[in-house]
Amino acid sequence: MTHPDYGILSPAWAGTPVAAATADGPVVQAMLDVEAAWVAVLADAGLAPAEDADAVDEVADAALYDLPSLAARGQDGGNPLIPLLADLRRELKKNGAGASAASTVHRGATSQDIVDTALMVVAARAGALVRADLLRAADALAGLAREHMDTLCVARSLTQHALPTTFGLRAANWLSGVVLAARRLDAALAALPLQWGGAVGTLASLTDFLEPDGGTTADALAASLAERLGLAQPAAPWHTNRLPVTGLGAALADVAAASGKMAADVLLLSRPELGEVSEPQEEGKGGSSAMPQKRNPVLSVLIRNAALAAPQHAAQLFLAAGTAVDERPDGAWHTEWAALRELLRLAGGAAAKLAALAEGLGVHPEAMARNMELTGDLLVSERLASRLAPLVDGGKATVQRLVRESLGTPEAPGVPLRPALRAAVPVQALSDRGLEELLDPAGYLGQHRDFIERILAEHAGWKES
Amino acid sequence: MTHPDYGILSPAWAGTPVAAATADGPVVQAMLDVEAAWVAVLADAGLAPAEDADAVDEVADAALYDLPSLAARGQDGGNPLIPLLADLRRELKKNGAGASAASTVHRGATSQDIVDTALMVVAARAGALVRADLLRAADALAGLAREHMDTLCVARSLTQHALPTTFGLRAANWLSGVVLAARRLDAALAALPLQWGGAVGTLASLTDFLEPDGGTTADALAASLAERLGLAQPAAPWHTNRLPVTGLGAALADVAAASGKMAADVLLLSRPELGEVSEPQEEGKGGSSAMPQKRNPVLSVLIRNAALAAPQHAAQLFLAAGTAVDERPDGAWHTEWAALRELLRLAGGAAAKLAALAEGLGVHPEAMARNMELTGDLLVSERLASRLAPLVDGGKATVQRLVRESLGTPEAPGVPLRPALRAAVPVQALSDRGLEELLDPAGYLGQHRDFIERILAEHAGWKES
Amino acid sequence: MTHPDYGILSPAWAGTPVAAATADGPVVQAMLDVEAAWVAVLADAGLAPAEDADAVDEVADAALYDLPSLAARGQDGGNPLIPLLADLRRELKKNGAGASAASTVHRGATSQDIVDTALMVVAARAGALVRADLLRAADALAGLAREHMDTLCVARSLTQHALPTTFGLRAANWLSGVVLAARRLDAALAALPLQWGGAVGTLASLTDFLEPDGGTTADALAASLAERLGLAQPAAPWHTNRLPVTGLGAALADVAAASGKMAADVLLLSRPELGEVSEPQEEGKGGSSAMPQKRNPVLSVLIRNAALAAPQHAAQLFLAAGTAVDERPDGAWHTEWAALRELLRLAGGAAAKLAALAEGLGVHPEAMARNMELTGDLLVSERLASRLAPLVDGGKATVQRLVRESLGTPEAPGVPLRPALRAAVPVQALSDRGLEELLDPAGYLGQHRDFIERILAEHAGWKES
Amino acid sequence: MTHPDYGILSPAWAGTPVAAATADGPVVQAMLDVEAAWVAVLADAGLAPAEDADAVDEVADAALYDLPSLAARGQDGGNPLIPLLADLRRELKKNGAGASAASTVHRGATSQDIVDTALMVVAARAGALVRADLLRAADALAGLAREHMDTLCVARSLTQHALPTTFGLRAANWLSGVVLAARRLDAALAALPLQWGGAVGTLASLTDFLEPDGGTTADALAASLAERLGLAQPAAPWHTNRLPVTGLGAALADVAAASGKMAADVLLLSRPELGEVSEPQEEGKGGSSAMPQKRNPVLSVLIRNAALAAPQHAAQLFLAAGTAVDERPDGAWHTEWAALRELLRLAGGAAAKLAALAEGLGVHPEAMARNMELTGDLLVSERLASRLAPLVDGGKATVQRLVRESLGTPEAPGVPLRPALRAAVPVQALSDRGLEELLDPAGYLGQHRDFIERILAEHAGWKES
Repeated sequence: MTHPDYGILSPAWAGTPVAAATADGPVVQAMLDVEAAWVAVLADAGLAPAEDADAVDEVADAALYDLPSLAARGQDGGNPLIPLLADLRRELKKNGAGASAASTVHRGATSQDIVDTALMVVAARAGALVRADLLRAADALAGLAREHMDTLCVARSLTQHALPTTFGLRAANWLSGVVLAARRLDAALAALPLQWGGAVGTLASLTDFLEPDGGTTADALAASLAERLGLAQPAAPWHTNRLPVTGLGAALADVAAASGKMAADVLLLSRPELGEVSEPQEEGKGGSSAMPQKRNPVLSVLIRNAALAAPQHAAQLFLAAGTAVDERPDGAWHTEWAALRELLRLAGGAAAKLAALAEGLGVHPEAMARNMELTGDLLVSERLASRLAPLVDGGKATVQRLVRESLGTPEAPGVPLRPALRAAVPVQALSDRGLEELLDPAGYLGQHRDFIERILAEHAGWKES
Repeated sequence: MTHPDYGILSPAWAGTPVAAATADGPVVQAMLDVEAAWVAVLADAGLAPAEDADAVDEVADAALYDLPSLAARGQDGGNPLIPLLADLRRELKKNGAGASAASTVHRGATSQDIVDTALMVVAARAGALVRADLLRAADALAGLAREHMDTLCVARSLTQHALPTTFGLRAANWLSGVVLAARRLDAALAALPLQWGGAVGTLASLTDFLEPDGGTTADALAASLAERLGLAQPAAPWHTNRLPVTGLGAALADVAAASGKMAADVLLLSRPELGEVSEPQEEGKGGSSAMPQKRNPVLSVLIRNAALAAPQHAAQLFLAAGTAVDERPDGAWHTEWAALRELLRLAGGAAAKLAALAEGLGVHPEAMARNMELTGDLLVSERLASRLAPLVDGGKATVQRLVRESLGTPEAPGVPLRPALRAAVPVQALSDRGLEELLDPAGYLGQHRDFIERILAEHAGWKES
Repeated sequence: MTHPDYGILSPAWAGTPVAAATADGPVVQAMLDVEAAWVAVLADAGLAPAEDADAVDEVADAALYDLPSLAARGQDGGNPLIPLLADLRRELKKNGAGASAASTVHRGATSQDIVDTALMVVAARAGALVRADLLRAADALAGLAREHMDTLCVARSLTQHALPTTFGLRAANWLSGVVLAARRLDAALAALPLQWGGAVGTLASLTDFLEPDGGTTADALAASLAERLGLAQPAAPWHTNRLPVTGLGAALADVAAASGKMAADVLLLSRPELGEVSEPQEEGKGGSSAMPQKRNPVLSVLIRNAALAAPQHAAQLFLAAGTAVDERPDGAWHTEWAALRELLRLAGGAAAKLAALAEGLGVHPEAMARNMELTGDLLVSERLASRLAPLVDGGKATVQRLVRESLGTPEAPGVPLRPALRAAVPVQALSDRGLEELLDPAGYLGQHRDFIERILAEHAGWKES
Repeated sequence: MTHPDYGILSPAWAGTPVAAATADGPVVQAMLDVEAAWVAVLADAGLAPAEDADAVDEVADAALYDLPSLAARGQDGGNPLIPLLADLRRELKKNGAGASAASTVHRGATSQDIVDTALMVVAARAGALVRADLLRAADALAGLAREHMDTLCVARSLTQHALPTTFGLRAANWLSGVVLAARRLDAALAALPLQWGGAVGTLASLTDFLEPDGGTTADALAASLAERLGLAQPAAPWHTNRLPVTGLGAALADVAAASGKMAADVLLLSRPELGEVSEPQEEGKGGSSAMPQKRNPVLSVLIRNAALAAPQHAAQLFLAAGTAVDERPDGAWHTEWAALRELLRLAGGAAAKLAALAEGLGVHPEAMARNMELTGDLLVSERLASRLAPLVDGGKATVQRLVRESLGTPEAPGVPLRPALRAAVPVQALSDRGLEELLDPAGYLGQHRDFIERILAEHAGWKES
């Protein structure tokens, strides 16, 4: 009795295209694709009859195989390719393929070649989906950054109101993380390497098979295979040099982290007490039938789920790389597979939800203004200290005293700041209008436009890359 | 198009009973079991018609539900119970159940109550399987400890030959870890708590439903539910006090760690150059058709896989517990599910393989003896320094010199130690026989028997507990 | 040139008593204490002259040793005990102690015995400090739970207003986590074991040293040593069975997690927009001179720091346990030390700050009331659906419509709920007063008092334990 | 009473230059360097008197400050810069500097600017040390790869003898990982960014200070500061976009992983039973006085320590990045500091030890040959199956039977393979010499030279980069 998983416990990615692209079926399909591509390469090189390639191609369809059985039999040799290859040869036989096909298939390869390469193929396919969602998210964030370039809101540090900023700069900061993560993902995807080394990374069997004086070389064949699969050809097999895997994993963890940053903010800013943004509302999502007042920010919740989970899976990959022994490791290699797939899924789920979040985010400037009111003129207290100190009796100490007196306590309200300042600063030193301007948060935004523009330029640069 | 997973990338647990017991189907079944048990409790208390309980019981069968759809729809509200409950009510209607059943089901509960409780039920079921395998492993290890109580072998520290020990003590040490892990697992399983708190952990809805002057209390009903499900009743809901989950996770990580210790040793000791033990050989397992000389220690490889992976999942649970906010957390809770299940599976896979490994381990005393020969009399050099120093001219320095001279280098063999010692120690101080005895590794085993006996007593104590 | 660390980068624990108790000096002192205690045990048993014990005792003072040099020389043999022992013998000599003292010290022990045992001694000392702070925190939380048993506030799930609860129940939930963590810590501290096994865990050297027909046994001596050091005597050495360490680590991670839960809530609730609680204010703490309106919740920030960091250190311990090979592991053992100390410090820093936070927490019921106003009558929408449905035309659908119409949107306010309900429910079915009562959040608190009382009982039970 | 740490519990990095470069003193020095550089930038731009720059420069010496006090006071505001800045201003005053210096220092900056930038400065300094050690290691490994290009040895997979390879290829594979890690580190170091954003990342205060029509811009000043400190100028402040930190952390974890791979192999290959390599022997290192036969591979043990520990610290950085909220995070930021420093130290310790290991590694071809003997002709069994099958009666099945019969069991030796093959293969099909050649492991090495050459080319390419 088989018991498959469908993602019931993983709403962060269940039901997304990346989940589908990385499921057991597609993973097995990628293994079959690698085997079939290799026979095709051999046939192209005149090293196998074209019929072999056709025969293998015909059975290189995951739907023909009993996945639960493959999974269970994977225990016997420690990886799923061993039973898959046996079944593939059985299928060839069933199909009436000649003995040549059975011996041509997998020629010179080892199970690690197929598993590693197939996972790179899966990563390439899933990675393209992740990238597409990052692109959507980035475009939407760029739109928000532009639209709200001057939309005033509170900037918070250590949870407290600090200074004014704009929602456009906040969106640009989200964008900045997304673009950097996307660039790293691009670099990782472009470097995804073919694994082709035979049993111990020497290609001994393949070399032995090729006529020493023959027209082709193991190297040329591997290059053809890499090209067919859309992978890079590495300098040498990386059976136990696992940095290609850590590099991919780190990029995926970065995607989850960049997404998690925006989600962390949305989870806060969409609380009823703040209300500065709201998640896109779609029928049937995020609602509670029992408590209809709830607008659960489900997209952000699930992105946060991904951001909290991805780091441990990335750690797994670094650990596997650092404990790889021999010419094929004794357990470390095996720990990579589930961790890498989970990272692809978490990054994919996060990116998909981030795109939806960025595209549909409700932005509420009036709530931002309301929250600014809470701190009022004190939001520019940093400025007051530096600008008014030279103008008042007692200098900075006086300004600080007035500010302090305005603070109030949970028990008692403070003294209103503005009249107190007016009283302390001679009008000849600062006109009413000058004081007004000084207290205007819109006048204390520093380089916010420059920063937004530069981040937008980074975004544009990435898109052109 | 649905794409299920079967464990293709997880040979460490694919195909094991624990994998089956924790799959999406059984998880959904556990959720249905909780819903059905609750209606039964209400019916027993006269708070719902018995027909409702029957009606819910009839549709509380995971096979009736579309799992891929549930998984995908889990995104909408952030958990799979929401769509499951909708489908359950639809099934009730389809079955012709009255409106009462639909409103009785889930009465007073929140989705977290069902998800948390269902995962505890799944943990109890899977945990029992893990325990059974630990018991098998422990019994087999106890047998090895007894049988090889005095089988001499090299003890190694920092990879180097240190002193003599016995294989029985090594097996007893493995046993010691397994027994401690099993005791911790027992404690964790005994404490698995019901979660029953309603939307925010107050049981407001349930309390409101019960007649204030009625014959029963929310508390009594929860107690009945806990009993029905075989769970403990906690002092209060633990919606955001997640230490019940970390406690379980730590125990499961301990199971993986105790298993990993033995696997680490077997992976070493079964190398061709050492050959002291060998994994059980079964047709079709661990062999390589291309390289038949290989006896891949697949059980140990996969246990090591589990031991390398479990710690990060345990970290996930501690992290979720420490970042839980509000009365239901905004993502931390969601990260627990996959991590907890993976821990159950890794512990389950490790324990199953540990049982097979311990029961079928080949033990090769002759190889142990051969390896001891490599170091020869130097294996008791620690003893020589303390026992011969008083007997020779120059004391300890002399003994150390002789030992040093016996070491040899990669380039040149050393001076044989035994004749050199004989020459240095006057016969009247130490007879030939006395010297022989001093050099006998079997005479330098310390408390090995006592330690073995005590560990065996711990084992027996656990079994009686 | 030496470059010590003082905790500049670790404000989560710098300057706390636990930091001091676990610093390099106290760690070295604990190693010296173990060596001295062992010589004292030997002397008590008549196995060494009392002068030796005195001589060792005199030099068992960390202040005599060059810690930077010990640290640097620790590289040579892989642990700090090796150079410490050399220096200790040098100190003995310098002090004029006889050769007997130098040979008695460390007799039969191995460096792992001393390092492991010393870390257990350090853990016991630091653990007592952690416990004391948990006790303070728990007492204060119990006070809050009692005082605010009925102080109404909003319960939030997935960041949104869900139902009413009381601040007392929230405090009790914090308490519940703290008490469970404290109980686990107590259990872990009570089990801290002596490590005493000699080079490979057989006590061969010690056994060899004792007269076979002598008056005492290795076992009895170890028992005396354990007693002197306040540690438990295990069944056998645990050189490579590292579950004693994972057990302690998990308990410490639980302390950080339970603390982190409260900190997560305080970080939220003390935001200016919520204002329900405030951190204790102390001159010079949490303030910003440039932005005096800021009341940085520094205690909670640093507790959160601990809660985010502790899980990875706990993972380290599980990983070390699961990869321990041979009779002394080849790197895994070494990774435990820093991780275990950091866990002690993070738990200690978190507990100290938790105590200050709980004792000085400002609680602001008026802000809680204000936040409840935001959701108003909708806070009991769950109740309305169940209680009013039978009373209105159209049943539940009608109630849900009224509720929906009352919600409003970011653009437009909703229809006031109360009058709409009044209009829909016939007065004969529900009087004005009845409706009022139904809408009163104080009447929809479920079992909050029971839960608080039971958690208080758990607290009392722990204190009596 | 202060209790500093010196690395007593961290032999993996204690006493190394990177440890010194990252200690609390140098961290504080870097903070002071940043403050001083900023005043110098302001003075250069005519925005502050040159005397201010001199005055600050004079007190920008970590030796003037009470580090333990700074560490302890770091708790108050959550970071060490706050007390440091207070003390710095006090020092200025003590030194007789004018009030202008005190107000110029830190102008427009926030504590996060200084802490982040200082850590980047520390990373640059420490990173250069790491790189230098990687260069040494790589050069030595390149030498080994060249020297032993054709030195035959066993290639192992899943712990078992698989096929022949050469020690040169193994060394090249180590080199391959080191070069890739070094390239990633180079990229990370080149990208280390200045942090300069003021309280919330807008540079509001600085902008406000500059004459709006003035000759310089905040941007130009930041560029000068970046140049002075040797850092890159980012598009915008990255207060809560923490991917610059994860990128550095991943590169450092890669260094530990690449080092760990070699260490894992050396720990195995230097075991007495294998003896293929030996760690460099230095007086007083890795020896055991009680057990002089032990040659503890301490370098590899400590590298493995680093490789086991680094992943969890990298996870910490990804976690911090993905949970950063607001314009300065509420705890996540604080968790980065210790993790980043520990990664620098672990990478630095690992690289230093790797250099020593690679430069001093003893290579023992005779032991490699001896180990090959264990498997004998079976080492090319893969080749036999493919090459002899066409030549014998019964084809592949016959070859496999002969191979199987040669295997033997723990109980009985197998039938010698070579005569059995000779008997089975007709001489006319394969001459004695042909059979001999077929069985020669030196003839079954595949592309080993090509792979070595390409990895050496990568190495050369890196050095030229």
